[in-house]
Amino acid sequence: MEKKVSASVINRLPRYYRYISEIEAGGIERISSKELSRRMNVTASQIRQDLNCFGGFGQQGYGYNIKFLKSSIEKILGLDRGYTAILVGAGNMGRTFAINTKFESRGFKLIGIFDSDPKKKGVKVGNHFIKSYSEIKQFISENKPQMAILAVPKESARGVAEELIGYGIKAFLNFSYTELSMAADDVTIENVHLSDSLMRLSYKIVERENNTEQVE
Amino acid sequence: MEKKVSASVINRLPRYYRYISEIEAGGIERISSKELSRRMNVTASQIRQDLNCFGGFGQQGYGYNIKFLKSSIEKILGLDRGYTAILVGAGNMGRTFAINTKFESRGFKLIGIFDSDPKKKGVKVGNHFIKSYSEIKQFISENKPQMAILAVPKESARGVAEELIGYGIKAFLNFSYTELSMAADDVTIENVHLSDSLMRLSYKIVERENNTEQVE
Repeated sequence: MEKKVSASVINRLPRYYRYISEIEAGGIERISSKELSRRMNVTASQIRQDLNCFGGFGQQGYGYNIKFLKSSIEKILGLDRGYTAILVGAGNMGRTFAINTKFESRGFKLIGIFDSDPKKKGVKVGNHFIKSYSEIKQFISENKPQMAILAVPKESARGVAEELIGYGIKAFLNFSYTELSMAADDVTIENVHLSDSLMRLSYKIVERENNTEQVE
Repeated sequence: MEKKVSASVINRLPRYYRYISEIEAGGIERISSKELSRRMNVTASQIRQDLNCFGGFGQQGYGYNIKFLKSSIEKILGLDRGYTAILVGAGNMGRTFAINTKFESRGFKLIGIFDSDPKKKGVKVGNHFIKSYSEIKQFISENKPQMAILAVPKESARGVAEELIGYGIKAFLNFSYTELSMAADDVTIENVHLSDSLMRLSYKIVERENNTEQVE
């Protein structure tokens, strides 16, 4: 874990984690790299390469020990650290994320949902009651969450992020339809753009159409 | 565009596209690779490398022509092809995606929203009225959409995808909290898992904490 791991390996790790978790839930204790490769639709050599970045977990002729692999990926991704998160913004995007994300099974805990709209105060979302944004400063100082999930309007995103940084939050997951970046070196932001996935799909259609043209 | 482009470059292209679009909207006609690099928070050499995969668009000492760069990326991603999409599933996730995605400015057209819940029929989502899932076969045969966005319950995802493949759909954007893959070579699926972004953020926090430990 000492050397810098490439961004594409990091991008693939959550997917490994989801598959390994499912395989474990299915009661399987050990899997060959060939079988894992078939299930994940990734070449066996890619899997070996990716996992080798972190020291490798497989044994020749034995395959991967699922439990060990899972707990290793958990450590790499920090899912064993019990990080807590707050959600700011309980509009469509925020509610969808809060309701559908399996926080606990991914090693996180959502500890509060905030919105600046007084009409939303006290409304239930999943297991949470929306709190007023005016309570957020005190909440953060008392509960010290590691992450804030931003699902606020585009125009408010930067202001909210700067305010929360002032209260001590240093990691943001940003669903606010704008790209946030902060000059501060110790602040980490993961920007999520749902429409990017649409563009990637489009690229794949083009690629397929081009290939079909060549073949015909 | 003949050679195979790496997945990581493809993953970065939508982000390039968003930035270039914003820069164009700001009235800028030409940008140095240094300035583009500063705005995007990516090294200038990374940008050069990525864009060179598609033949390169910059000129030494001149920088990038924004309009040309934008239309080139549009061609690569197929955003100039007028692809149309239907959305299946008008729950939280589906509605959020339909309302918040700027389809048109990304070169797509959302032409129909379907749900199997009779209570949702006729309900307005953005500019659309939800249609009954029972109308989907005829709608597809008449309108021939290129893509289907799946935001259905996990358990229904595979069945719906198989049914739509039968009606001629060959590209899926899957928000159904399960990983879909199809044996058919001519079917393309882009699986989106929102919780993956949470795990990536977590990794970055771990990385930062490790670095801080080393420095202190």
